[in-house]
Amino acid sequence: MLTDNLLKQVSFIKEIDKLKYIQRKTKLFNSDRNENDAEHSWHLAMMTIVLAEHSDVAIDVLKVLKMVLIHDIVEIDAGDVFIYDTQKNHTNTDEELLAAKRIFGLLPEEQAKEFIAIWEEFEAGITDEAKFAKSMDRFEPLLQNASNNGGTWTEFNVDYQKVYDKKKAIKNGSSSIWEYAENLINESVDKGILIKKTE
Amino acid sequence: MLTDNLLKQVSFIKEIDKLKYIQRKTKLFNSDRNENDAEHSWHLAMMTIVLAEHSDVAIDVLKVLKMVLIHDIVEIDAGDVFIYDTQKNHTNTDEELLAAKRIFGLLPEEQAKEFIAIWEEFEAGITDEAKFAKSMDRFEPLLQNASNNGGTWTEFNVDYQKVYDKKKAIKNGSSSIWEYAENLINESVDKGILIKKTE
Repeated sequence: MLTDNLLKQVSFIKEIDKLKYIQRKTKLFNSDRNENDAEHSWHLAMMTIVLAEHSDVAIDVLKVLKMVLIHDIVEIDAGDVFIYDTQKNHTNTDEELLAAKRIFGLLPEEQAKEFIAIWEEFEAGITDEAKFAKSMDRFEPLLQNASNNGGTWTEFNVDYQKVYDKKKAIKNGSSSIWEYAENLINESVDKGILIKKTE
Repeated sequence: MLTDNLLKQVSFIKEIDKLKYIQRKTKLFNSDRNENDAEHSWHLAMMTIVLAEHSDVAIDVLKVLKMVLIHDIVEIDAGDVFIYDTQKNHTNTDEELLAAKRIFGLLPEEQAKEFIAIWEEFEAGITDEAKFAKSMDRFEPLLQNASNNGGTWTEFNVDYQKVYDKKKAIKNGSSSIWEYAENLINESVDKGILIKKTE
C-alpha cells in the first residue's frame, strides 16, 4: 500500500515540475524578468509564514500553506490567466477543474480528493484560510508592481480603479496588511506609476 | 507594534526575491535548464506535503515546511555550494551563519530568532523534522538526475559511491523512500548513467 502510494506520488512530483515553466505576467522585484508559478508559489508560502500574525482571525497556517503551494498547479494545463484580462474569467473555469482532476488525480485517491478540496476551498475564497491565502496572492504582485515603476499596470494600461477593485480582497484576510496596501496604491498614484482616470 | 513588524516583514519579503536568481547545479526534470533555489524550495515543500506519510516517525509537518522553505535563503549571500564539491564544505560555513543573521535579521526580533533557530535545526539534522526535511533535499535531485540521463553525475563525473554516501541520508527520514531511492540508484548503474568504479 505504502509502495503503491509512493509510485503515484513520485509521478505527481515529476509532473508538477512543469509549474516552473508557467510564466506569469508580473515581473520579479526591481526586474524585467517574468516570475514563474513555482517561484510565485514559494514566495506566497514565505509570506504566509512571515505575515500570519496579521490575520484578523486565528487561521490554520498549515492549511494556508497547502493552499498557496498548490493554488496554481492547475495552470500546468490551463495556463496563466492575467488577473486584469477582460476576455477570460480568472477563476473557476471548466478548464481548471479538468486540470485539477487530471493532475491531482495522479496522487493516491484519498490524497487526490484532499488536494482537489483544498484547491476548491481556495478558489471559493469563503473560509478564513482561503481569505488569507488570497490576501497573499493579491499582495505579492502589488509589491512587485510598485517596485517596478508600475510594472504590469503600465505595461497593460491598468488604472487605479481596476487595481483597487482587485486588491481590496486583501482586506478580507488582514486589515493591517490592507492598510499598508491601500497606502502603497495611493503612493503609486502620487508617483504617477498608477493612473487615476478622472470622470 | 503590528505596523512596525509589517514594515520589517515587507523588507524581508522583498529581499528574499533574490533566491530566484540563485542557480543550482541540478537541472529541472527532463531538461537542460538549471533549477533555481526558489523553485527547488517550492518543490521540496510540495514533496513534504505529499510524502509526509512515509516518515518513519510522527513529524510536525508545519515545521518541516518552514525548514524546506527557508533552508537555502542563506545562499542569497553565501551562494550555492555543489553537494559533491570537494573544495568547499557544503554546510555550516561561517559565511552561511553571517548570511542567516543578516537576512533573517531583517525580520522583527522574535521572528528572526525563530527563523535562525529553524535554519540551524535543519542544518544540524538531528531532530525528526530535520531528518525528514533533509530526506526531501536529497531525494529531489536524485529524481532529477535519473530523469536527465545522469545529469550532474555525468556532468561533474560523480560516481556511484559518492552518490550513495550522500543519498543514504534519505534513510534517516524514511525507510520506504530510501528503498525506492536505493532501487533508483541501482537502476541508474544498470542503465550506465551512474558509474560504479571497480577496485
